[in-house]
Amino acid sequence: MIVEVSIVPIGTGETSVSSYVRAAVKIIEEANLEYEINSMGTCIQGEWDEIFSTLKAMHDELARLGCNRIVTTVKVDDRRDKYGTMGAKIAALEEGL
Amino acid sequence: MIVEVSIVPIGTGETSVSSYVRAAVKIIEEANLEYEINSMGTCIQGEWDEIFSTLKAMHDELARLGCNRIVTTVKVDDRRDKYGTMGAKIAALEEGL
Amino acid sequence: MIVEVSIVPIGTGETSVSSYVRAAVKIIEEANLEYEINSMGTCIQGEWDEIFSTLKAMHDELARLGCNRIVTTVKVDDRRDKYGTMGAKIAALEEGL
Amino acid sequence: MIVEVSIVPIGTGETSVSSYVRAAVKIIEEANLEYEINSMGTCIQGEWDEIFSTLKAMHDELARLGCNRIVTTVKVDDRRDKYGTMGAKIAALEEGL
Repeated sequence: MIVEVSIVPIGTGETSVSSYVRAAVKIIEEANLEYEINSMGTCIQGEWDEIFSTLKAMHDELARLGCNRIVTTVKVDDRRDKYGTMGAKIAALEEGL
Repeated sequence: MIVEVSIVPIGTGETSVSSYVRAAVKIIEEANLEYEINSMGTCIQGEWDEIFSTLKAMHDELARLGCNRIVTTVKVDDRRDKYGTMGAKIAALEEGL
Repeated sequence: MIVEVSIVPIGTGETSVSSYVRAAVKIIEEANLEYEINSMGTCIQGEWDEIFSTLKAMHDELARLGCNRIVTTVKVDDRRDKYGTMGAKIAALEEGL
Repeated sequence: MIVEVSIVPIGTGETSVSSYVRAAVKIIEEANLEYEINSMGTCIQGEWDEIFSTLKAMHDELARLGCNRIVTTVKVDDRRDKYGTMGAKIAALEEGL
């Protein structure tokens, strides 16, 4: 399964939120999940439970850093006919571009 | 916590997906979570674990109904300073409109 | 066409963003577009150009109010086989619930 | 401005949608916009009007290819304090990871 996560702390008073996003990405790294950063979010590859428990840990980490409100957009691509990987998806798309 | 979920089955060959969305909403009902349907998704109010285990059950139900690929957009509004409710958010917004 | 818009000002230092969201909704009202507020966003019904010029006006209004960064999530449901309305979508879904 | 676009044709009867996504990406190329493909969407850098007219052209192209319903998720990161670029955002995030 592939999930894209984009996490936004609200009310921090800073226009740049990269320090919070970095803390969140470190949680993904510690979970040993495969991931790819892009300029609008982070794609994560794995199984449902490990991905969503990691997402919860990301929110908890931002709360620990002082965020009182965390708005996250998550997009789930859940294929049941085959195990979709990030690499295969991009390869399928780029073939013929 | 409030979460909005929008679930789209891919590859069903039908332009209308309301039968699948209805099956997914029934899973929310069975979970006894407070929810509100809008024309682009469903808002759910509850705690993290119950919401995300319900979301997983929604995907499993669509797979059971024959969907081989399920794309879901989830937006999470996680307030840690107070318990945000759907009713309070709309009331705060409409006050003064 | 139906579009759901969820607008988040970044860096305002306030956990509540309802005053900004209210200002954005007023722009939709002034554009005379049909809309429905839900607890996670606003659904708007109309034609492509009028909806997206209104979205731009919403960003401009938030910038005018002092927001230096505006993050917006937009979901577009663009049917070409028939004119989809917000009311018809909800009715189709609720039939049988 | 940076925008991430994720376009999904509904009702095509195919689990794989990469041929449609590829057609959409070609429209971005023809518009000479800077873009980056990731496994869940495409990030585009540019000005508001050129990005959104390109998005409309992407929908029109998919309709021309036979899609009767196109569901698109768009995330807009609109900074007014500086011109945000895709490269700078990723660099800011990766610094210290």
